[in-house]
Amino acid sequence: MKPRTVQDFINGIVSSDRVVLSQAITLLESTRPEHQALAQEVLEACLRHSTNSIRIGITGAPGVGKSTFIEAFGLQAIAKGKQVAVLAIDPSSQVGKGSILGDKTRMAQLSQHENAFIRPSPAGNSLGGVARRTRETIFLCEAAGFDMILVETVGVGQSEIAVRSLVDCFVLLLLPGAGDELQGIKRGIVEMADVLAVNKADGDQADLAKRSQRAYQNALHLFSTKPSGWIPQVLTCSATTGAGMNKIWELIEKFRTFTQSNGFFDRQRREQARHWLYETLETQLKAAFYNDAQVQLHLKNIEQQVIAGSLSSTKGAAELLQLFFKRSESGFTALED
Amino acid sequence: MKPRTVQDFINGIVSSDRVVLSQAITLLESTRPEHQALAQEVLEACLRHSTNSIRIGITGAPGVGKSTFIEAFGLQAIAKGKQVAVLAIDPSSQVGKGSILGDKTRMAQLSQHENAFIRPSPAGNSLGGVARRTRETIFLCEAAGFDMILVETVGVGQSEIAVRSLVDCFVLLLLPGAGDELQGIKRGIVEMADVLAVNKADGDQADLAKRSQRAYQNALHLFSTKPSGWIPQVLTCSATTGAGMNKIWELIEKFRTFTQSNGFFDRQRREQARHWLYETLETQLKAAFYNDAQVQLHLKNIEQQVIAGSLSSTKGAAELLQLFFKRSESGFTALED
Repeated sequence: MKPRTVQDFINGIVSSDRVVLSQAITLLESTRPEHQALAQEVLEACLRHSTNSIRIGITGAPGVGKSTFIEAFGLQAIAKGKQVAVLAIDPSSQVGKGSILGDKTRMAQLSQHENAFIRPSPAGNSLGGVARRTRETIFLCEAAGFDMILVETVGVGQSEIAVRSLVDCFVLLLLPGAGDELQGIKRGIVEMADVLAVNKADGDQADLAKRSQRAYQNALHLFSTKPSGWIPQVLTCSATTGAGMNKIWELIEKFRTFTQSNGFFDRQRREQARHWLYETLETQLKAAFYNDAQVQLHLKNIEQQVIAGSLSSTKGAAELLQLFFKRSESGFTALED
Repeated sequence: MKPRTVQDFINGIVSSDRVVLSQAITLLESTRPEHQALAQEVLEACLRHSTNSIRIGITGAPGVGKSTFIEAFGLQAIAKGKQVAVLAIDPSSQVGKGSILGDKTRMAQLSQHENAFIRPSPAGNSLGGVARRTRETIFLCEAAGFDMILVETVGVGQSEIAVRSLVDCFVLLLLPGAGDELQGIKRGIVEMADVLAVNKADGDQADLAKRSQRAYQNALHLFSTKPSGWIPQVLTCSATTGAGMNKIWELIEKFRTFTQSNGFFDRQRREQARHWLYETLETQLKAAFYNDAQVQLHLKNIEQQVIAGSLSSTKGAAELLQLFFKRSESGFTALED
């Protein structure tokens, strides 16, 4: 069988061929330069096919029921006519060790549905690298007609900040809770949320969930106004019984309408594109430096001298930069920051 | 008058000539390449003359009495035979607008003392740049015989993290306080502190200060053990009356002895040197990139295309990196992160 051409990939993706879409994502995740080159050409073409999508980040502490929530929310979205893609950010997963979405049985019904596409998180050495590829995967999924992208993340801090730079709307799931105000969820993550939902509001936890809802809503008053002008709301739901799930849908739709009409929605997407340009630039610039043969040859020795105090960090840095830039005729002068 | 040579500067510094020391620091702060080159040579020589010093970071919210504390603490240190240098990290200050230490009258007695040296924070565009120059200034001061370096910072978050990477011991000043647990001081800053002192523990605030001391000491139990193995303690003091100031001195001495005997003191200094090597490398690498003529010529145009969605951030970054590295015969291939 002939290898697919760029045009084969593009045709397959825009005609919603899941197999081709999956293969294109695999190319994106590949570290081989020829795969990367091909993937980038496909990506460029896909940028012109983006749908009128909404990208939703979903986070919460382990045990809050993220996958049950995503299954219920995704099926509900499909029932309302959406095409749903589920991606994940989980830099801690490694090849062979599986990832937070590796086990598709976690979302048994959704993963079988013809209008859903579930893709486990690619393993990666850096959170920035994983998040960048997830961002590119979003564009491919959108070109394939998926108009609701759910990005799941483990609730541990850094990955939420990365997800925030990928999505339009950020949903934080909470447990019916304990008096401790924010359940160990970092304040910064609560501040990023547009929609908060106390999950597992069923059975004998329903009352507690209501009380938690009020407590969180009060706590939110202490936060400053968001750049979007949107006032975050706390709802209760049960992903198991389905109670409250429709209200969450409505609130997210309200968020979309609100931010689209005040211009924030587009402004945020443009700002995210800008952010990723600089993030990618600086990551690859550093990679070029640390992968340079001369730098690799001398870095450890210079580091040892700096640590021993026989060389200043400034002079050590200048020597390494000179080695890196030596190929240039014009030479390199240390520049001010 | 002939300009000073490298050797003139070194001789002047090691013989504790304050005028020469000040001029060398001014060279360090200069953005002119010839000044930088001279300053770096002086700095290299000074590294070999470091004293058995202790570097102490001092922070606290505005109004907590940092300069009164530093004046009292510094005079006490001088009375015990120390040579005291006071530096500051304040990236918000600009040339002509003064800095947090610009007004030496804030420390009237200390600034007059022959065993003290007070140097305002240099203005700078980036916190990293200011902190790097402060670090280098510390080495010059140590070569000039100053064996107690006090680094003052405004209590606003980022600058404390920078100061933490410059000092051996971190002191947090607090106000006798209000019930609100941590007085708006970010938890991360409290976690960095080795010594906490409730200042203004005098007059009718003395009792309140005692209660605050106990509340903070209890709150500290919730934090995890420090890498140094040191258990932070909370004291009360009044920089105005002098009450408790000697206890703070003793606690810092205890900290020094403790961390020197378990090896943490030296390990932390080596780790800081390593940190500053990489910080400087990456800052200057980015500066070289963004100051490149070709990059400057095309960056805005590519940024606009990325923001408009007609170019992916990955391809935009690759194009700019190719422009930057084009002088190289070997070409540049985008590298994985």
